[in-house]
Amino acid sequence: MYVMDKTKKEKTARMEFDLAASREIVLNKLKQLGGRIVEQLKLNELPEIKLPARSTSNIVYDADLRQYVLGPKLVTRTARNIKHLRPLSQLLWMALFSKQLVERKKTSTLRDAFYNAIGFGIDFEDQNESDNIVTELESLLGVIREDFNIYPEERSSVFGPLVVQYNVPGYEGSRLDLTTIPDGAMIGPAMATAKFIKCEAKQVFVVEKGAVYQRFLEEGVSKTFKAIIVHTAGQAPRATRRFIRRLNNELKLPVYIFTDADPWGVHIANVLIYGSALAAHVKELTTPDAYWAGLWATDISKYKLPAMRLNDEDTRRIAELEKDPRYSTDPWKREISYFRKIQRKAELEALSRYSLEYIVTNYLPEKLEEIKKS
Amino acid sequence: MYVMDKTKKEKTARMEFDLAASREIVLNKLKQLGGRIVEQLKLNELPEIKLPARSTSNIVYDADLRQYVLGPKLVTRTARNIKHLRPLSQLLWMALFSKQLVERKKTSTLRDAFYNAIGFGIDFEDQNESDNIVTELESLLGVIREDFNIYPEERSSVFGPLVVQYNVPGYEGSRLDLTTIPDGAMIGPAMATAKFIKCEAKQVFVVEKGAVYQRFLEEGVSKTFKAIIVHTAGQAPRATRRFIRRLNNELKLPVYIFTDADPWGVHIANVLIYGSALAAHVKELTTPDAYWAGLWATDISKYKLPAMRLNDEDTRRIAELEKDPRYSTDPWKREISYFRKIQRKAELEALSRYSLEYIVTNYLPEKLEEIKKS
Repeated sequence: MYVMDKTKKEKTARMEFDLAASREIVLNKLKQLGGRIVEQLKLNELPEIKLPARSTSNIVYDADLRQYVLGPKLVTRTARNIKHLRPLSQLLWMALFSKQLVERKKTSTLRDAFYNAIGFGIDFEDQNESDNIVTELESLLGVIREDFNIYPEERSSVFGPLVVQYNVPGYEGSRLDLTTIPDGAMIGPAMATAKFIKCEAKQVFVVEKGAVYQRFLEEGVSKTFKAIIVHTAGQAPRATRRFIRRLNNELKLPVYIFTDADPWGVHIANVLIYGSALAAHVKELTTPDAYWAGLWATDISKYKLPAMRLNDEDTRRIAELEKDPRYSTDPWKREISYFRKIQRKAELEALSRYSLEYIVTNYLPEKLEEIKKS
Repeated sequence: MYVMDKTKKEKTARMEFDLAASREIVLNKLKQLGGRIVEQLKLNELPEIKLPARSTSNIVYDADLRQYVLGPKLVTRTARNIKHLRPLSQLLWMALFSKQLVERKKTSTLRDAFYNAIGFGIDFEDQNESDNIVTELESLLGVIREDFNIYPEERSSVFGPLVVQYNVPGYEGSRLDLTTIPDGAMIGPAMATAKFIKCEAKQVFVVEKGAVYQRFLEEGVSKTFKAIIVHTAGQAPRATRRFIRRLNNELKLPVYIFTDADPWGVHIANVLIYGSALAAHVKELTTPDAYWAGLWATDISKYKLPAMRLNDEDTRRIAELEKDPRYSTDPWKREISYFRKIQRKAELEALSRYSLEYIVTNYLPEKLEEIKKS
């Protein structure tokens, strides 16, 4: 979670990630939640909670934040209504579980939370139901689940001229120079909550594919381009999306995103920049200033790449994206319509047809130049 | 690749991983292959190559190696036969590509190899065809593709009291203490080829699930159990399978494998121990002395775990495993038949029903005790 850096508040209002302050804020919110319930019970009232509505009719575009957010509509969960008793109890148990995680400085996963609930005697039909309650808790508290220590299993990784300082138990204050790990460092809970201490990078390259990440590392891209390189491993886990946002926000580094030239790759870039519809109830996961730097549909023609025919699923997905307001401007609109025109898709690795290094020696500098011009 | 440690050859014949020696061996094999073709051409003969047959009828169990290997049957690829010309050219191109990778100390992926071939004008129908040629090259040379620098995209990770020394370009001689990275270090090409310098571990715990890996790290299992912890992230990539084998072979550490209690988890453990049928043409990927330490089907009853009903796919898979000779002894045979009996499966995280720490404080020591007794 971002908190105002108090010493600099007046001067620049620079936002800094501060784990201790974040923990305090989350704990206070959880205590307030519990406090309200206890007060209601003391007054002999049946407890109730008001939650932001997550229905599609309550999702609006926020021009300042440049992402979709929830509107002002609220829903009430009240113990007066017998149908509400179950989700209300589930939500309160999840708040209890989360409070214990934060207090004990332990992390957990959605699945662990589900099984722990079962052991406690909380009735969940399946993990979907429990995952949904975690999402409700996020929207109620206005923080992401990583802030109350529920992390995804998937891990991305990062490499580049950046020194971080860890905050997790047993590692308080210990530092890592990311250039000392030749395979790159994982973005787990420790990396996600580390402070940025020293940065010699001028930009960030985010890549979808492991092969391209490895190519960038081997070709010394972090040195020649003074770049931090992030591997999302497909659709970026939320901890990674926030990490990329932090690189952009705190270090003021421009971010360039490289994905496959297919409707799925396009959407990986789009979600990093504008956020997913599923996460409209939380902020701080998007990087609205990032650039989608390819592989574009138009690159398939420009670079004469080996390309595959779109299948039915691709075509359906393209039709969906054409209706999505996040795709109403260029390069999104232009590229989506070009996919439809050429009926082809290509992977980033298709650039290897010229040589393994071509993506670094030719494609990367040409594309950066093109984006800077426009 | 394992090579005999020359200084100790006479005394103990200890096998050590040596990247420089491995490179030399692979390069020599590739040069011999090319040399044979050139000789045949000089004698005005149509070139031909003999390859181990990879048909199921040529897969036999090797009791010494305790894994399935290819039998003595050979197939001939000859330029005399017009149908052979295509796969013969493909194979020779792949050998050329691999030689360049090893000489230039660059790594690649199966997909990169495919696109590079297309750029060179080598005709491959699709990536499957090119992957198959890589497998042929493995069986022809008798080494795994990682030895000629074609790596998988997937990455596992490792944590524990072990110091490694890297060999990859730019990092020659630099060392990493794995306990200094709180999220664990990735098993990429650099880690996979690093030398083991100092080890204070007494055992290795291999886990399928990211949540359990994170739990083990947070609970300090590497300290209290003096253990190296490896996260496979599902079915282990081959670089990880060899890394686990190295921990067992070179450091003489016992290896315990923890998977979900379902037919897929069981097979993750089985493949780590006995190898996959697909890899019968290569050695050095298995750890025959490793123990499958759970989660067993019988643990579902013993620990009263929340369990799900087997679906049709699970049931079909169990029927397949019952016919597989690798499942003809206990615990495999016993556990597979218990799955059939109770018609249930459970995930490792199901142990969280007692508490997040239960898997470390109760399950782990009880299971190690049980295995040591038997």
